[in-house]
Amino acid sequence: MPETEIDTLIRLFSRLPGFGRRSARRAVLYLIKKKETQLIPLAGAIQNVIDHVQTCPICGNLDSQAPCRICRDERRDENLICVVQDVADLWAIERSAAFRGRYHVLGGLLSAIEGTGPEELRLPVLEQRLHQSGVTELILALPATVDGQTTGHYITERFKELPVKISSLAQGIPIGGELDYLDDGTIQTALKSRR
Amino acid sequence: MPETEIDTLIRLFSRLPGFGRRSARRAVLYLIKKKETQLIPLAGAIQNVIDHVQTCPICGNLDSQAPCRICRDERRDENLICVVQDVADLWAIERSAAFRGRYHVLGGLLSAIEGTGPEELRLPVLEQRLHQSGVTELILALPATVDGQTTGHYITERFKELPVKISSLAQGIPIGGELDYLDDGTIQTALKSRR
Repeated sequence: MPETEIDTLIRLFSRLPGFGRRSARRAVLYLIKKKETQLIPLAGAIQNVIDHVQTCPICGNLDSQAPCRICRDERRDENLICVVQDVADLWAIERSAAFRGRYHVLGGLLSAIEGTGPEELRLPVLEQRLHQSGVTELILALPATVDGQTTGHYITERFKELPVKISSLAQGIPIGGELDYLDDGTIQTALKSRR
Repeated sequence: MPETEIDTLIRLFSRLPGFGRRSARRAVLYLIKKKETQLIPLAGAIQNVIDHVQTCPICGNLDSQAPCRICRDERRDENLICVVQDVADLWAIERSAAFRGRYHVLGGLLSAIEGTGPEELRLPVLEQRLHQSGVTELILALPATVDGQTTGHYITERFKELPVKISSLAQGIPIGGELDYLDDGTIQTALKSRR
């Protein structure tokens, strides 16, 4: 029996992160029942993303403009670059509204296990940016994992001859975090970096 | 600042059942990264559903054909009708592969709290079906909730003058359980032990 239109849609939904067959069925039924208010707008929104969204050639952000809104925003400090692993991390920092510089999305981390080397990250573009403009500080906002720290170390080494200050996000106790629930590593780091 | 294409898509995803802002952002980023293999096929699948899927005028199932595949399947016993609340329940029974008759989707349940009366369910169509054809048995596969049992009782009363046997799924369905969430074995047992 050939796959029906509904089955195809369920199969594609069930591949999304956090989705299984059951939740995909629920979502698809919900969409079909709300065809006018949900399904048709969703189709339009997806088509808009397909037609317009592209990767910014400078920073690696996703936007319908190239260069992206952040790279074009002249009120943002172009001498301050925040290096992140992924667009999701860029979005997280933007939501915090605590950073008014530019970004650089690596598109991954160095990983011995996954076999990701420097040539697979957006490092040449970063090097160009550092050489061409008057960047004064590179803030490494990478995850506090082994791969994140390895990548940060690699970047620090690679650009140590350049007149650029390289800093990392502070490590410590998250705001609202209970000591009792934190892992030993976090507590040790927080103690060592006490101020 | 106007909403970007990506924000629109995230907003629509976050309305899906089981989705919040965070999981919607994850899903949308995943789709954009896999544009060729996921996002474009998803757009096509949604358009296919929009263009082709309709409600079967006989049983209320969703299909790209009207009448639906099940109503057109002559190998299925048309004298046996299984009454379900929703298309999701029909799918659940089909997955159990324990039923070879036809269906009737009510599209809801009688509910005093939500103010759903008989006229809002697909009961007139069911009445027509019972009058026109030689239906011998109506199997009520309704949830074991107050509304489900009320609806079953109402249907039994309404059609008690007709020469149709009315049975219900056997006890064994957990009280408060929804058909869509039950395992196939439970559904098979409940069908076999109908009374």
